[in-house]
Amino acid sequence: MAIAALAFALTAPAQADTLVDNVNGITLDQNGKLVRFTGLVIDKDGKVKELLDRKDKRPERPDFKEDGKGRTLIPGLIDAHGHVMGLGFQLMLLDLSETRSLAEAQAAIRQYAAENPEMPWIIGRGWNQEKWGLGRFPTAADLDAAVPNRPVWLERIDGHAGWANSAAMAAAKISTASKSPEGGRIEMEGGKPSGVFVDAAMSLIDGAKPKPLARDLDRALLLAQAKLIEQGVTAIADMGTTIEDWQAYRRAGDKKQLAVRILSYGGDIDNMAMIAGPEPTPWLYDDRLRMVGVKLYLDGALGSRGAWLKAPYADAPGQKGLPLLTPAQLRNKMVRASMDKFQVAIHAIGDAANAEALDAIADLTTDLPGERRWRIEHAQVIDPADIARFASLKVVASMQPVHQTSDRTMAEARLGPGRLTGAYAWRSLEKAGARLALGSDVPVESANPFAGLAVAISRTDAAGQPFGGWRPEEAVGRETALDGFTRTAAFAAYAEDRIGTLMPGMRADFLILDSDPMLASPDEIRRMAPLETWIGGYRYYKKNEAGTGGR
Amino acid sequence: MAIAALAFALTAPAQADTLVDNVNGITLDQNGKLVRFTGLVIDKDGKVKELLDRKDKRPERPDFKEDGKGRTLIPGLIDAHGHVMGLGFQLMLLDLSETRSLAEAQAAIRQYAAENPEMPWIIGRGWNQEKWGLGRFPTAADLDAAVPNRPVWLERIDGHAGWANSAAMAAAKISTASKSPEGGRIEMEGGKPSGVFVDAAMSLIDGAKPKPLARDLDRALLLAQAKLIEQGVTAIADMGTTIEDWQAYRRAGDKKQLAVRILSYGGDIDNMAMIAGPEPTPWLYDDRLRMVGVKLYLDGALGSRGAWLKAPYADAPGQKGLPLLTPAQLRNKMVRASMDKFQVAIHAIGDAANAEALDAIADLTTDLPGERRWRIEHAQVIDPADIARFASLKVVASMQPVHQTSDRTMAEARLGPGRLTGAYAWRSLEKAGARLALGSDVPVESANPFAGLAVAISRTDAAGQPFGGWRPEEAVGRETALDGFTRTAAFAAYAEDRIGTLMPGMRADFLILDSDPMLASPDEIRRMAPLETWIGGYRYYKKNEAGTGGR
Repeated sequence: MAIAALAFALTAPAQADTLVDNVNGITLDQNGKLVRFTGLVIDKDGKVKELLDRKDKRPERPDFKEDGKGRTLIPGLIDAHGHVMGLGFQLMLLDLSETRSLAEAQAAIRQYAAENPEMPWIIGRGWNQEKWGLGRFPTAADLDAAVPNRPVWLERIDGHAGWANSAAMAAAKISTASKSPEGGRIEMEGGKPSGVFVDAAMSLIDGAKPKPLARDLDRALLLAQAKLIEQGVTAIADMGTTIEDWQAYRRAGDKKQLAVRILSYGGDIDNMAMIAGPEPTPWLYDDRLRMVGVKLYLDGALGSRGAWLKAPYADAPGQKGLPLLTPAQLRNKMVRASMDKFQVAIHAIGDAANAEALDAIADLTTDLPGERRWRIEHAQVIDPADIARFASLKVVASMQPVHQTSDRTMAEARLGPGRLTGAYAWRSLEKAGARLALGSDVPVESANPFAGLAVAISRTDAAGQPFGGWRPEEAVGRETALDGFTRTAAFAAYAEDRIGTLMPGMRADFLILDSDPMLASPDEIRRMAPLETWIGGYRYYKKNEAGTGGR
Repeated sequence: MAIAALAFALTAPAQADTLVDNVNGITLDQNGKLVRFTGLVIDKDGKVKELLDRKDKRPERPDFKEDGKGRTLIPGLIDAHGHVMGLGFQLMLLDLSETRSLAEAQAAIRQYAAENPEMPWIIGRGWNQEKWGLGRFPTAADLDAAVPNRPVWLERIDGHAGWANSAAMAAAKISTASKSPEGGRIEMEGGKPSGVFVDAAMSLIDGAKPKPLARDLDRALLLAQAKLIEQGVTAIADMGTTIEDWQAYRRAGDKKQLAVRILSYGGDIDNMAMIAGPEPTPWLYDDRLRMVGVKLYLDGALGSRGAWLKAPYADAPGQKGLPLLTPAQLRNKMVRASMDKFQVAIHAIGDAANAEALDAIADLTTDLPGERRWRIEHAQVIDPADIARFASLKVVASMQPVHQTSDRTMAEARLGPGRLTGAYAWRSLEKAGARLALGSDVPVESANPFAGLAVAISRTDAAGQPFGGWRPEEAVGRETALDGFTRTAAFAAYAEDRIGTLMPGMRADFLILDSDPMLASPDEIRRMAPLETWIGGYRYYKKNEAGTGGR
């Protein structure tokens, strides 16, 4: 879909009273109790006016009436942890994963370059010389044959190598004298760099890429919104907003092209202060945008052994990962944000990082009384002894179900069989009384929240593996899963007074589905996609209908 | 006035139809013709609905009716060149210029520190040891006696020395080993820095000052707005907006606390692109804010001999000043901005800088056809041979009348008597067919536009000097002066379709005055101050009335 049409499709018209009738309506109420209804009345401000039972009288003359034809209606799903611009830029990449030969890839690259004459670099991903049957890595010369006059830089399907043309190597000042960095390798051919850079050597080219222009950010944001809406995400917590990201959100808002609600957490204190100033911003653009808090990184990830563990990695004896902040740095940042009423969301993956985040929160709970709604992001590996502290300290556990299936075998290798009790421990956290906000971590995973719902209740991946689920005792119930993607995801961002449920007074953000996720099998839930997506009482997307958000 | 009350006073209520009747109304029309009227009807959007003659029928039932009591009503004045945040920060400084002894100054400093406990540094100006009869410079110890525990840094009345306390010197790492930089002097006492830093040595302390916090910017903006409104300025071109400034403007706008219209020019390309992105912003907050272009510096100022001259300075043989951009840099920045439809405003003070700006504009007029509305800011010293080029290249001359009176003797010294023909040559530019947009350059001068109007038509300073005016042939007529502060100031910022005149459809921004500036003497004009200031059909200020913008 062309960007111009996309921008148009995201522009909401004036509102009017609307009745959506004859639906299998489902929402949680403010207390988390499941409520069913058959009709929904939306007021002129795009808010829910009334939920109707089968027997309730319908308004006599709504301005618009929609027949739900008995389909299921659920609240718009809220992704409690994602990266909006990361998704947008992912969608802008040239995708070579479907190419079946070098020649096909070259043709695709040539076409993409022609279609994007303003892009200073052609950036892409997905090539696989094995699939092409090439019997060797491709070379810069292969790429120069497609695009000789602009840098081209393409990541391999597995993310572990990149392929540059001569212009990209020149921009990065790569020469025969360039040395492979530790943990990486510059492929050579005839004594010269061949064009392929492996692992850590990829950073040699990555560092030369130009910063995206504002128009690129604007385009990425439109693409991200269309993708989210198509997948049923009506609001998303943007974890680590930069000032550049924020300016793009505002540009879209100023032009009435912000459809998805963005709950923004500044990328560390600098971005938070630059964006919001002395306090969280007001809700902007009819509750489409707000900077509510700050995202802090306390450790890295399990895959790269950057997650900070209490005991050494099972597959790397002696390594425990590292904290990225000293105890004083973490507490100073938390105090700096909290004093100005910003919410604090701490990235903590390893059990040592989670314990330290909880310790810091405990310290500050004494010094800074009042409701702070601390968040720990990921909370992937928790010492079982720490699980109860999430509840006692009222910390929101912001977790991403699909990570569990993606990481499963890797996590087993990193931790060994004896230390998995507190890993991805959704049900244990819930039982202890903690609140679970669920998300995707897009673009690390797909933004699709139905995959998240399916994994949350099944602990199985898209292939149904492992049969019966991985540590299935940590699966949660359907209502908890729905709650995590709606009511508690809103609560986690101080947005429960306007989104997350469909109770009267809330924004009318909802999805029309062709089956009931409270009854469908996990596999059916995973394959669900909205037939319609409504935000603020306006339908932004209808499946398979020309010109509306399809992509 | 307290900041909270100020914020409240700047918040506009809902609008309604208003009739302002029985006025001596004056405006220029779109073509610059003087129009007189006796009544003004404002619509619900705060726009002019109708101008009424004495004989015209009045609307039967306006929601509000104001009796002008025969007073004069003119369009709100537009400052075509100022620095909004610079004004705000100037107003926040501790002002010692009225103190008559060291003890009085110490008491004032102590009180200011007590009243501003959150300020990390106490910053001020205006001390004068001669006036105090002290017989010596003050010392750090004198200042430590007033405020020992926070850095204090106070500029002398003439701006040529600064006075630091021990905490400020410690923050700047000043020690007995510190060396006076070229063009500056660290005053010493008993082998140690005494606390006074002269000329270039001031930068040693200036460099250690903390960056203002967002809350400081917010406070500065409220103070600046109150001052501008009180002085009759309803819109101002902000020349060199930074991203930090912009975020403060947006915070005010988001809270409905932006009253004065800010026509923003980004401080060089970086700020422009960071703030506005791929094109000028839309008009925001009911035409209160827009980034329209970029401000570029081509040279410095006459006072510091930084202005770039064609021939050497008369009082510094061999020096001609310097361009701050190479020809290629200037043109590249101009192209970069213009390609994205940003307007370009070039600071040029010396005749060489003006000639080079005109050359660059001529070059780009060929390459980039279309209406670009180039601006040259200050245009203080122009080679008479270049004057006609302002008209032929359609360049707006953005000039600040009061600079002429402040700079007069200095300009004579710098240029010598033979080279003053093209200096502050308002009338010559007008006669040649160029458009004059007039402003203040606040905070370099006072924001008071009535002083500007008075100087524009008289070429005399506040003391009436020199008698008959300095090179009075360059004075302009009253209509041209009014035009420069209204219609052409709006035109100069692409705002002529909404402000600058009071013709129907324009925003109802106007002043109530107690005499008619088309009849008053220059001296009377200089002393004028609005009785009332209205912006967008709402009265933001009424003289001597409690709680409305007085300061």
